[in-house]
Amino acid sequence: MSAFGISGLAHLFGVLAIILLLVWLLHYREGIEFDSDIGFRVFNVHPLLMFLGFIFLAGEGMMAFLTIPGKREVRKFVHMTLHIVAIILGIVGLYAVFKFHDMAHIADLYSLHSWIGIVTFGLFGLQWLFGFVTFMLPGAQGPTRATMLPWHKAGGRALLFMAVCAAETGLMEKSRFIGLKPYQTEINLVNFTGLAILLFGVSVNIVVGLR
Amino acid sequence: MSAFGISGLAHLFGVLAIILLLVWLLHYREGIEFDSDIGFRVFNVHPLLMFLGFIFLAGEGMMAFLTIPGKREVRKFVHMTLHIVAIILGIVGLYAVFKFHDMAHIADLYSLHSWIGIVTFGLFGLQWLFGFVTFMLPGAQGPTRATMLPWHKAGGRALLFMAVCAAETGLMEKSRFIGLKPYQTEINLVNFTGLAILLFGVSVNIVVGLR
Repeated sequence: MSAFGISGLAHLFGVLAIILLLVWLLHYREGIEFDSDIGFRVFNVHPLLMFLGFIFLAGEGMMAFLTIPGKREVRKFVHMTLHIVAIILGIVGLYAVFKFHDMAHIADLYSLHSWIGIVTFGLFGLQWLFGFVTFMLPGAQGPTRATMLPWHKAGGRALLFMAVCAAETGLMEKSRFIGLKPYQTEINLVNFTGLAILLFGVSVNIVVGLR
Repeated sequence: MSAFGISGLAHLFGVLAIILLLVWLLHYREGIEFDSDIGFRVFNVHPLLMFLGFIFLAGEGMMAFLTIPGKREVRKFVHMTLHIVAIILGIVGLYAVFKFHDMAHIADLYSLHSWIGIVTFGLFGLQWLFGFVTFMLPGAQGPTRATMLPWHKAGGRALLFMAVCAAETGLMEKSRFIGLKPYQTEINLVNFTGLAILLFGVSVNIVVGLR
């Protein structure tokens, strides 16, 4: 199977994860609404936007040089744009969880999930800025770009990996928080969602690693 | 900084994670003993051996082609041996958690942590077998090896990534299980352990990604 074939698998796992997340949040949980008086509906914005932004769009952005037809400049623009959209969705998703904590009087930033998440968000922003300054602005010269490219790629792969760790720990935290019991339907749904997210991350990693 | 410099950081984060894990399991928790009548002492074998095997030794094995002086054959032997030791430690570590579940009448394999862990363990074994047959046995020819190498590398990176996800979700599960409270010393210790494990995984990934 080629890198292009694996990118097909990546799309599949990504879309599967979105569907499973929506079934979970809309059917099993309270629904998704940023401006609700019900704290859990506000909270549910968080997992959806963090996955859509930091994992799905960022992953698709990483594969854009392979999967988008057209000139290199077009692919690069799509790559950069998907990542800035990821950051915007991430800001809204993070705002939602702090808003929920405020509504429900829950402490902020004490769990491993929150630590991994906040470190990943910060480094992701730096990686985007670094990439924009080096590869989009006309300032950096060819040799500088050539030196920086492997670091940009390795950093991007590491960040996707950290974002997936944040998602998996987040799903664990929520499963425990709502007291899911062994083998019940909802915990299996959450676990399959986690596996789909993991396999999306793994597939994207293999696609960009093989190039 | 060179790939070799980053490998220094990787050793540092790896050793830091071992120290933090030992402080946690020996000082804050019940200690580590495979043949104990106290279930928690049996359980504590699990996090130690899974990290030592599947993450630390596997990660050191992945970097062996860069960090071990000597001929290519020596490096390759170290690479292969560290991975088989990882598998043996992994088997003992998995046995410990099933033994603990049996002693404490806890259900097996229902959490996202256990699902990620068991999938990773199975694929790790397959990757080792695949590597041994292709690269150690004299059967496979040069062109086959050259075709398989990028897949072996990409698969190995993906597996380290999955193993780190398993570790992080495991730390979350245990933190919740023992009811750690926000901002207390022990939860911060667990979180720093999780960050050290994550940074070890990230550094190894960058080292092998840059080569």
